[in-house]
Amino acid sequence: MEKITGKNNDIIKNVKKLLSSSKHRREQNLFVLEGARLVFDVLNSFYEVSCLLMTQSAYDKYKEQADKMVELSRRSFIISQEISEKLSDTKNPQGIFAVCPVKKNDEFLPKSGGKYIALDNIQDPGNLGTIVRTAEALGIDGIIAGGGCDIYNPKALRAAMGSMLRMNVFQYENLCDIIPVMKESGLKVYVSTPDDKALSVTDVDFSSGGVCVIGNEANGVSDSVKKLCDRLITIKMTGRAESLNASAAASVIMWEMLR
Amino acid sequence: MEKITGKNNDIIKNVKKLLSSSKHRREQNLFVLEGARLVFDVLNSFYEVSCLLMTQSAYDKYKEQADKMVELSRRSFIISQEISEKLSDTKNPQGIFAVCPVKKNDEFLPKSGGKYIALDNIQDPGNLGTIVRTAEALGIDGIIAGGGCDIYNPKALRAAMGSMLRMNVFQYENLCDIIPVMKESGLKVYVSTPDDKALSVTDVDFSSGGVCVIGNEANGVSDSVKKLCDRLITIKMTGRAESLNASAAASVIMWEMLR
Repeated sequence: MEKITGKNNDIIKNVKKLLSSSKHRREQNLFVLEGARLVFDVLNSFYEVSCLLMTQSAYDKYKEQADKMVELSRRSFIISQEISEKLSDTKNPQGIFAVCPVKKNDEFLPKSGGKYIALDNIQDPGNLGTIVRTAEALGIDGIIAGGGCDIYNPKALRAAMGSMLRMNVFQYENLCDIIPVMKESGLKVYVSTPDDKALSVTDVDFSSGGVCVIGNEANGVSDSVKKLCDRLITIKMTGRAESLNASAAASVIMWEMLR
Repeated sequence: MEKITGKNNDIIKNVKKLLSSSKHRREQNLFVLEGARLVFDVLNSFYEVSCLLMTQSAYDKYKEQADKMVELSRRSFIISQEISEKLSDTKNPQGIFAVCPVKKNDEFLPKSGGKYIALDNIQDPGNLGTIVRTAEALGIDGIIAGGGCDIYNPKALRAAMGSMLRMNVFQYENLCDIIPVMKESGLKVYVSTPDDKALSVTDVDFSSGGVCVIGNEANGVSDSVKKLCDRLITIKMTGRAESLNASAAASVIMWEMLR
């Protein structure tokens, strides 16, 4: 394997930019996975790898899986410890990175009776990742992200623990573009809101599927999205409702959809 | 107000250590709140303030509430921007810090019919904070933390968004010390586990209260805690169960306890 030692190498500069800029990811149609667990999750996904970067010690440590990754990757390089530290935003990087082509965003074709979560402008990558992870655990059929944090944000990928590679996740600029398609396919579209007068999520019949929209952390679901939806629903609480964050609310909603 | 400009000032060194070391917090019986929202939450809590630190610009920005805080605090200082940045672990610190005495850990006296969450060695401060925040939102009566991350960890305080100051949170070295007390008071103690043969959480009758134990992120609930408890319960999932993280599992369990 070829070695890269210079921090100003063009490949390294590009990887750094892919890690920090969603605009750059969009322009290049590439994203970066960091860390042994996430990188090796690619082996069980439909993603390809255009470039693999490992420190010598990472290669030695994970030899068996690393060799499989090298085989899968178009190009592989050994990088210095210093470069690994420069690329990583963790304190003790594991020294392994994979640059992958973004999956072409298939058109969202909701399946009849499917259960989906739609995200309206979720900003926090940790929330986005946690919601995708929980969705996979509970058995949600897909996630539709409208606006907000991009699904290939490194923090979102880390929080999702590989679920981002396995789940059906669709990304649109604005949920308004896709809600009509959901409705035409026969799915009911619900909006989760802290409004006490809305229908309790425990009284919704999800047996024939549906979509629940979870709103932005600060502003909830936008009015333009609300207008397109069928029904407002809410999590009735005895405590201080304003304190439930987006990913906790999503956990409860998804649980009720599948309960 | 007196000014502190030297980074090696003893007060500053102590605050820095209180932020970084749980041992130091325990020894001094003090902890630190950072940021406008958290610091001003003290005004609506039972906590006292032994030392308030603000930059001049933070004082000017939040004058009304800052003046109330100065009145409440035993001592108040204006600190330089540089010190604020040294103390903070956020990129753009708001320049306001409060050092507060730890509340004497009242003995946990479970109320009859109360609903509690017990945490067995939760390590991640983000998980701890999120669980406390969700517990307050949903209306849980109290949290009993056994081992793990300490409740005054700055990241846990931030994730809890002030709920840590308002909720009943009890901290023990080991849950085994307190479970017998819970049981003697007539509460059933349940253990949440990914074991598919355990009783489904949907089949548990929480109407007369109870305690649910949530386990450590990597190892779940320890055997010694399990042995003391009444019953294993589980979140039946159609997806990939191993992927549900501690705070998402806690959200679902708490929701079922109060549903």
